[in-house]
Amino acid sequence: MDLTRLARDLARIVGPDGVVSDPDALTVYERDALTYLSEYPPQIVALPRSTAEVAAVARRCFEAGVPITPRGAGTGLAGGAVAARGGVLIGLNRMDRIRSVDLANRQAEVEAGLVNLWLTNAVRERRYFFAPDPSSQAASTIGGNIGNNAGGAHCLKYGMTVGHVLALEVVLSDGSVVHLGGPAPDPPGYDLAGVFVGSEGTFGIATAATVRLLPEPEGVKTMLAIFECVQDASNAVAAITAEGIIPAALEMIDKHIIRAVEEVVRAGYPQDAEVVLLIELDGPWAEIEAQADAVLKVCRRTNVIEVRVAKDEQERARLWKGRKEAAGAVGRITPTYYLQDCVIRRTLLPRILGEIDAIGARHGVRIANVFHAGDGNLHPLICFDERVPGELERAVAAGSEILRLCIAVGGTVTGEHGVGQEKMNFMPLMYSEEDLAAMLKVRNAFNPENRCNPGKIFPTAKTCGEVGIAYRPHPIEQQGLAVRL
Amino acid sequence: MDLTRLARDLARIVGPDGVVSDPDALTVYERDALTYLSEYPPQIVALPRSTAEVAAVARRCFEAGVPITPRGAGTGLAGGAVAARGGVLIGLNRMDRIRSVDLANRQAEVEAGLVNLWLTNAVRERRYFFAPDPSSQAASTIGGNIGNNAGGAHCLKYGMTVGHVLALEVVLSDGSVVHLGGPAPDPPGYDLAGVFVGSEGTFGIATAATVRLLPEPEGVKTMLAIFECVQDASNAVAAITAEGIIPAALEMIDKHIIRAVEEVVRAGYPQDAEVVLLIELDGPWAEIEAQADAVLKVCRRTNVIEVRVAKDEQERARLWKGRKEAAGAVGRITPTYYLQDCVIRRTLLPRILGEIDAIGARHGVRIANVFHAGDGNLHPLICFDERVPGELERAVAAGSEILRLCIAVGGTVTGEHGVGQEKMNFMPLMYSEEDLAAMLKVRNAFNPENRCNPGKIFPTAKTCGEVGIAYRPHPIEQQGLAVRL
Repeated sequence: MDLTRLARDLARIVGPDGVVSDPDALTVYERDALTYLSEYPPQIVALPRSTAEVAAVARRCFEAGVPITPRGAGTGLAGGAVAARGGVLIGLNRMDRIRSVDLANRQAEVEAGLVNLWLTNAVRERRYFFAPDPSSQAASTIGGNIGNNAGGAHCLKYGMTVGHVLALEVVLSDGSVVHLGGPAPDPPGYDLAGVFVGSEGTFGIATAATVRLLPEPEGVKTMLAIFECVQDASNAVAAITAEGIIPAALEMIDKHIIRAVEEVVRAGYPQDAEVVLLIELDGPWAEIEAQADAVLKVCRRTNVIEVRVAKDEQERARLWKGRKEAAGAVGRITPTYYLQDCVIRRTLLPRILGEIDAIGARHGVRIANVFHAGDGNLHPLICFDERVPGELERAVAAGSEILRLCIAVGGTVTGEHGVGQEKMNFMPLMYSEEDLAAMLKVRNAFNPENRCNPGKIFPTAKTCGEVGIAYRPHPIEQQGLAVRL
Repeated sequence: MDLTRLARDLARIVGPDGVVSDPDALTVYERDALTYLSEYPPQIVALPRSTAEVAAVARRCFEAGVPITPRGAGTGLAGGAVAARGGVLIGLNRMDRIRSVDLANRQAEVEAGLVNLWLTNAVRERRYFFAPDPSSQAASTIGGNIGNNAGGAHCLKYGMTVGHVLALEVVLSDGSVVHLGGPAPDPPGYDLAGVFVGSEGTFGIATAATVRLLPEPEGVKTMLAIFECVQDASNAVAAITAEGIIPAALEMIDKHIIRAVEEVVRAGYPQDAEVVLLIELDGPWAEIEAQADAVLKVCRRTNVIEVRVAKDEQERARLWKGRKEAAGAVGRITPTYYLQDCVIRRTLLPRILGEIDAIGARHGVRIANVFHAGDGNLHPLICFDERVPGELERAVAAGSEILRLCIAVGGTVTGEHGVGQEKMNFMPLMYSEEDLAAMLKVRNAFNPENRCNPGKIFPTAKTCGEVGIAYRPHPIEQQGLAVRL
């Protein structure tokens, strides 16, 4: 393939300022936020401004036999937004328009490159918001959120991205454009918009989406509950949900993260606390007050030390700033970290958090925890120093063991970050060959020659062992706790 | 194909009492609840007792080149559960076991032939319930609900069936068995369980499902709001949801249905009322009381005549009995009816209900309305007498015109009953050729030779004109109200 010619052809489609082919400039695109994987520089980056341009780029690459890979902000944590097999990376950042807002029907049509938070910013004055709120929302794009079916702190109450996408405009690998779903609820035929969400760019490239907007709740109450030990805090999480209360958010933050956050953002978490829960209730005030009473009672029953209620919007914003910037603040306590993403049943929280601690100890790495406790969606941050020989390998081994543990107790290996390249080799631990074959057939229905985002989700002979994650059975599997998936 | 031999082979799999091939006995299976379509008797009916038996039947039919069609209770309203291309109909009614109940994780694993209401009956004492509640729930099966992504009165608050299915055990047309989804939230890889729900048996046969159970709300309040005209009642519906209140159910019942229901079940609806809303609130009591106040205020603002609150569980049950048995009671006011199912935006309710009335008048048929107003999911009951020559045709023409009207204003042609055979010819009005081709490719990924439930959802050269629904543009399309779908 003549790359110079391809670059010239693409420049004709997207303009000369829309093509990057200088090797130095391409290094910007060789990784996403999963930093420990090898670099995968694309051969060319195209930066289209419209669906028609994306379609033309895809068509040209299809003819040339070159794979394409879509990319939003590159904040993904599983190696999904890099050109694992080379070829043309299509950056969607220039497609960041809000095409229309229809508040009467609580919908907006946006382009895929729009930054998540910008949508809420655009409708906040009219007291509406876009519910999916991944911690990366100030940078990540709605297209990327759709690719990974992103979650976020408030997805406990409002659900994952898939529940907020009504319709999609999609460019397939051969350059054809299809419309999936529709603006009315439950359109006839198959729910292709639903299955597209979370397909991590392996079906095609979403260039625009019709998404739901929600009216702001009448009130919001944010509480910080301080506990003496993780066990008590976990019991509180299980008991709150057992009461039938669904908080807007229910986050757990452990002592390692508290120290880091207080140094950097001064969120107002007590420096000496072992663990805190950030609990947010929203809705009509009468409902909030009733729920707050119930939450307080549960916290007292589970030995809370203190519950602080944010007095005003400033204090609320500060508490949240601590949570949202936790991953960044961790730089204060470790040179590097490996952030995991897995889901277990809430009732297993105390047990599994203890096991994760033990895994860290066995591998000689410290593990900090800040996560969506209400969902059972864990985010262990495995701290290590990559300059010390062997530490990266130990961190990855600890991460792998945590994932095996979650599978063994009937959980899953990704809550919201996706499979990407990072977790390809875990798929056969969760699905039979037949189940994976069914998935591949559906991928092939959209993307028959694996031309769009190849080298993701499904393990191949080539990838087996490539990532270097070493499996070994977790002790819990020998204790009869293993369940059928 | 030697049918006698096939029947003998199938009897070896499911036992002699599990095969029906006598032509008289087969007439039971030649229709579903969409009565105006032609009869489609299957050639053989198989009644398996296990997933292994379903798989063996499917495999044998695949070898013999004979299509298979799954069927639950046959209560479907779109001709989906009949053997449109002949072959073997697989009745799942004997697979009606609850395999396991796990209240700690709010899940149950059930076989596809389990009647919807039986699941709630099994867990009611422990104060849990299965949320999807189609009006047919005392007869329809969970497998059938999954096939059609069934709704129901309480889906306004709790969502359609798709939100309550975690995992599926599926037999594909060649007899292979795959597992889609998983018991933990958001399993990695594609959401194949999600896209299977609503695929109307064209992907394969669901034999078992892991479904969500919900804890009963602390309280329930049911109100009957009586209005002088449909316009006022529609305004109340729009205003209640505009307040940010999501009732558990918000149903509209017009004068025709009120008369019929009061003659048969004496639900306590006022005989002389023009229209009533059945409004149910549930949740913690504090929330209910706050919402009830707001609902009362809205109703007063929209000229309600009276709001009655059910005093006790008996009165509540009676009000609901009227709604749930409305379709049956309609027999008192018409010899036959054709029940439609379409969705529009709530804000258009007053306008569209007026248009539906006018369509009935133009075609000389009376149209009664009982429907999920909160969702904008209309169910016009087109009344006619099939013994009078021409009345069936006029009813079908009126139904067709209502569907065209809904499409023209950005709605859809089925809210919960599915496309089946009834609405195949409307699909090209909602989707482009490319969009339909994308759907067909996904069907082919699961069911490559169209062996499972052929003759449904997608129009073919053969079906065009077969159903005999005559299209003509609705006047509203000329009024510039048409919107892009």
